[in-house]
Amino acid sequence: MKIGIVGGTGDIGEGIAMRLSPLFDVIVGSRESDKAEATCTINTETLRKRGQECSLKGVCNQSAVDEADIVILAVPFKHLLGTLETLCGFEGKIVISPVNPMEKRDFFTFVPPAEGSAALLIKRLLPETARICTAFNTVAANRWKMLDEELNYSVPVCGDDQAAKQQVMDIVNQVSRLRAYDAGPLAASNLVESITPLLLNIARYNKMKDVGIQFR
Amino acid sequence: MKIGIVGGTGDIGEGIAMRLSPLFDVIVGSRESDKAEATCTINTETLRKRGQECSLKGVCNQSAVDEADIVILAVPFKHLLGTLETLCGFEGKIVISPVNPMEKRDFFTFVPPAEGSAALLIKRLLPETARICTAFNTVAANRWKMLDEELNYSVPVCGDDQAAKQQVMDIVNQVSRLRAYDAGPLAASNLVESITPLLLNIARYNKMKDVGIQFR
Repeated sequence: MKIGIVGGTGDIGEGIAMRLSPLFDVIVGSRESDKAEATCTINTETLRKRGQECSLKGVCNQSAVDEADIVILAVPFKHLLGTLETLCGFEGKIVISPVNPMEKRDFFTFVPPAEGSAALLIKRLLPETARICTAFNTVAANRWKMLDEELNYSVPVCGDDQAAKQQVMDIVNQVSRLRAYDAGPLAASNLVESITPLLLNIARYNKMKDVGIQFR
Repeated sequence: MKIGIVGGTGDIGEGIAMRLSPLFDVIVGSRESDKAEATCTINTETLRKRGQECSLKGVCNQSAVDEADIVILAVPFKHLLGTLETLCGFEGKIVISPVNPMEKRDFFTFVPPAEGSAALLIKRLLPETARICTAFNTVAANRWKMLDEELNYSVPVCGDDQAAKQQVMDIVNQVSRLRAYDAGPLAASNLVESITPLLLNIARYNKMKDVGIQFR
């Protein structure tokens, strides 16, 4: 299975790529394909030194969409609209949104678009046949990159296409100790996306780092 | 320290009262003081049989406010406005809101009032000197009542009065294995209140019961 990551050299994208590449063929997209290639060369070496064979390929964002069966939109919310306007070819693909629309004011707040969530904005922008799921929203970017640490977190997954959602949950459950939970239809994504500003507040006010969640 | 519970015979209020009464003087309020008295008699007996001495007293909601230093508003969101309109005497008191404004449609959704959260609605309704904190929102009603089970959950606490918030966090940390986390100012309460509909969706779609959270 080929997983493409739009924004695959970004903060969260790079870490996701490194965690997924020993398990799947990962196509790392970036606005500049040179940067994607360079990042993949370095990270392939890093993983090899750890004894992990991996499949990482750096390309431009459009190629990451074109070559993949599943596309992860690892883009900050403020760049989401601009990025999606430059891309096409999402028809029939599974598209994963880990995007959290939030702002830092005096504290971190959830600032959803008019659609109610980043996921529903993505739904409006992409072709009808794209099978959009919300996942990976609440795992901190830094944790993805700490390869020596297990990711012992719960991952809520939303989506309207049950088969696509199950496939996404199966992927989640293969990564470290992540555990996927069905969190309902795509319209329930606001409840997932708003956890991240809460976790950032928790970290800030309790002098913690990279806080995540577990359901229990 | 005297803790009053408005709605103390309700679903969540009764369980909170039983967990707190071995630790604090608990004044259980209800619209009907007879009902509060009867409930307290039964639950005192239940706790005694378990070898736990407790201090439970049943009164009307107004007396629960009047006699307490700290008041917990254990009222469903739909009854919040109506209940607060009938009560007075909150001046200077610490007021804890475990209230979650939500609705069950096809799935559970967060439906905040115009103020943005139940906590901010309460702030608008109560006197300015009331020291409002959000706490206990994400612990399922049934779990409170399962006295044989430890409550091994994280409890985010919001509030603008630092001393009041610290006092609330100290109370939380004394109950079972609950652990309090400072989740920022009262205006951040929407991020806490919206967890509960998510947890109800998680329970429903994953065939779980009484799901809670831990930060980690």
